[in-house]
Amino acid sequence: MKYLFLVFTCLFVSFVSAQTDAEILKTIYKTSLTNGNSYKWLEHLSNQIGGRLSGSLNAEKAIEYTKEELQKIGLDKVWLQPVMVPKWVRGAPEFAFIETASGATTKVNICALGGSIGTPFGGLKAQVLEVKSIDELESLGKENIEGKIVFFNRPMQADLIQTFEAYGGCVDQRYAGAMEATKFGAVGVIVRSMNLRQDDFPHTGSMTYGDIPVSKRIPSAAISTNDANLLSSMLALNKNLKFFFSQSCQQLNDVQSYNVIGEITGSQFPNEYILVGGHLDSWDLGDGAHDDGAGVVQSMDVLRLLKESGIKPKRSIRVVLFMNEENGLRGATKYAEIAKQKGENHIFSLESDSGGFTPRGFSFDCSDTDMNQILSWKELFKPYLIHYFEKGHSGADVGPLKTDTNVLAGLRPDSQRYFDYHHAANDTFDAVNKRELELGAATMASLVYLFDKYGLAN
Amino acid sequence: MKYLFLVFTCLFVSFVSAQTDAEILKTIYKTSLTNGNSYKWLEHLSNQIGGRLSGSLNAEKAIEYTKEELQKIGLDKVWLQPVMVPKWVRGAPEFAFIETASGATTKVNICALGGSIGTPFGGLKAQVLEVKSIDELESLGKENIEGKIVFFNRPMQADLIQTFEAYGGCVDQRYAGAMEATKFGAVGVIVRSMNLRQDDFPHTGSMTYGDIPVSKRIPSAAISTNDANLLSSMLALNKNLKFFFSQSCQQLNDVQSYNVIGEITGSQFPNEYILVGGHLDSWDLGDGAHDDGAGVVQSMDVLRLLKESGIKPKRSIRVVLFMNEENGLRGATKYAEIAKQKGENHIFSLESDSGGFTPRGFSFDCSDTDMNQILSWKELFKPYLIHYFEKGHSGADVGPLKTDTNVLAGLRPDSQRYFDYHHAANDTFDAVNKRELELGAATMASLVYLFDKYGLAN
Repeated sequence: MKYLFLVFTCLFVSFVSAQTDAEILKTIYKTSLTNGNSYKWLEHLSNQIGGRLSGSLNAEKAIEYTKEELQKIGLDKVWLQPVMVPKWVRGAPEFAFIETASGATTKVNICALGGSIGTPFGGLKAQVLEVKSIDELESLGKENIEGKIVFFNRPMQADLIQTFEAYGGCVDQRYAGAMEATKFGAVGVIVRSMNLRQDDFPHTGSMTYGDIPVSKRIPSAAISTNDANLLSSMLALNKNLKFFFSQSCQQLNDVQSYNVIGEITGSQFPNEYILVGGHLDSWDLGDGAHDDGAGVVQSMDVLRLLKESGIKPKRSIRVVLFMNEENGLRGATKYAEIAKQKGENHIFSLESDSGGFTPRGFSFDCSDTDMNQILSWKELFKPYLIHYFEKGHSGADVGPLKTDTNVLAGLRPDSQRYFDYHHAANDTFDAVNKRELELGAATMASLVYLFDKYGLAN
Repeated sequence: MKYLFLVFTCLFVSFVSAQTDAEILKTIYKTSLTNGNSYKWLEHLSNQIGGRLSGSLNAEKAIEYTKEELQKIGLDKVWLQPVMVPKWVRGAPEFAFIETASGATTKVNICALGGSIGTPFGGLKAQVLEVKSIDELESLGKENIEGKIVFFNRPMQADLIQTFEAYGGCVDQRYAGAMEATKFGAVGVIVRSMNLRQDDFPHTGSMTYGDIPVSKRIPSAAISTNDANLLSSMLALNKNLKFFFSQSCQQLNDVQSYNVIGEITGSQFPNEYILVGGHLDSWDLGDGAHDDGAGVVQSMDVLRLLKESGIKPKRSIRVVLFMNEENGLRGATKYAEIAKQKGENHIFSLESDSGGFTPRGFSFDCSDTDMNQILSWKELFKPYLIHYFEKGHSGADVGPLKTDTNVLAGLRPDSQRYFDYHHAANDTFDAVNKRELELGAATMASLVYLFDKYGLAN
């Protein structure tokens, strides 16, 4: 019986080997679109678990759930990799209003930035100073800033085609705004949400105090784009109006958490690793469906799609669900540290952390030789309208794995809608389209298949 | 004063001429993304007017509104072109249920297909026969069909990457299902909605009775994908269950309507026409935001973007908002007829009627010589991630303009989400993303600019 099984297996493997790459990609895409599991997993992560802030109960549930699901698909190994993570909690919902000289108030939508301290008990009220940049802040100096709330209001640049570029051009306000404003005696910071759309959602995200001592730190919040425009208009009429906000967030001690890892061990080169991953933690306002539930379930399905398509990898394929990308990158740092300790040879590391939208291609951090090999595969992706193969940023979680040989890559989905949802309460399951998500998983699985088959070029 | 104005104008025109094509495309995209008008127009068409079925009051309002808006942007000519259109009305909301032998009923979501007759007063109840195709219907013959409601339930093929291909492989059930089923004595037809998603929206669309006399026609409706699966499951358990539906739609006499046309007259070759258009009519269940409000407002903005970008066309650029694409194509037929009568030389005709999603490129119906010229422009579009330049179907409304020389083209946006909304109640303004819509308008304006500058290759 066992012998017969082996014969069948060999015949099947031979059959797969006899297929062209084009035929195998076709099978992978078909499997994802007709028998994918990414959407079902995402439904659970988003609707049954929800936002998965590092150190939260939901993050624990997500670790447990994804570990169990990876076990169900029959990988060779599934394990948890311990890592200590920061634990920041939002506390009671934030509250804010604009107050005119007459005492009339207008409520506005804000949320604390991740890592911020709370306001004093009862809230904080002060005059507001609007600036467009940290440079402008510095040029104004202490005499204009002391005792005020600084309002950073530089919008994302709408005419940039790739929205991540527009994000990159603005996010310094959110990340470093409070740290810089503290130097000039500001008492608080409000930052325009990193959102290209006009709406009422405030968008959270990480910020830093640098080496400013705890006693000198000031609270920092994001305001929705609609309310940023409102505040700016009201300030244009009256520079003396006051802004009130109250938030009770705090940073607690680090807690134990885990990266979730699954592996198909390679049949010929088990010590060459191909990694595919996303981050399991998310911000807390929404359900982290696009950021990065999508990347998590796509990465999980890459291994399942290879199995379902009858592909038996020559190299070891790992899915890594990184913990704490949003506010610490501790999971990625730990994974890279252990991989280095063990001398694991990662040849290709692919991350999906740009939303579950229609895939357009990948950006790569690699040698020219490897890039040329990748470009030789480009034509295979044409039937799937995958056209973007460029050098560029790969991803935060695979970044620490950079070596002279490891090819790092990031999936590049269509980016137009990403910042409508990013770090906001509307990053929910209904914002993800099933087919777009599945096409992303298939695109990732196809590139993993090619790297497994051909290995590195250099 | 006038002289001074002329000097300035000439300087400005020279300035524009001195710019490279790459610079001009950059200006067009920037203008659309930072100062576009398409989204504002779409808001009005969708939310202030709504569904614009041919011959309806809303269609009249849309004609009036778009004519006024085209006049506001300062075109050289704006006019209405009379055309008689069919007038089909839905009447009272449809109602349907599945009834088991015990008399238990389950309500399901249906809508009448456009052009269908109503059910007899009080509704129609009969046994149901599920088939997957017209071929299967024919193989079953009269003995199995007579007196029954035929349920066409072939789903759209999920593994096709271009969803319009999946639509093309299914739509015969909707268009010809009733006509074919009548031949075998069926009393009604229910068709699975043309939707790749599982949801509760029935999707309407056109159907034909061919030359079947009025007295022999049978009513035809679409059922939501969720309810199609429900009905199919219940039929698998019990072939004898009954289906009830009631609809009071009817076909009235033709009424007067109009194509809306605006023109910038060419400075050097006024008798060479470049046309850009979409269709102003829509189905009635939603607001026709994607189909084809998006194409309408993008086409309008193409002319405005050219003006705003300081481009003075050499050839005459026309925007045509066609009436009655959905159930008759009368507007397009009339426009082509008049153009032929007047001997107007259309060199390039571009249609946008595939939704307001991120543009990926165009498909062209043209000579190889013209295609080669178009491909020589492809690199100019790379910064905007526009990569799809292929021969293929152009569009229903520009189709009648086909000659040996006219280049026909259709904008090809990302198609993954299109059939989630197509002809259904959820085709509303909130389903359209502002940036995606604006990128489409800029992509169209860019190609129009190039055709205006270089003319035909052949």
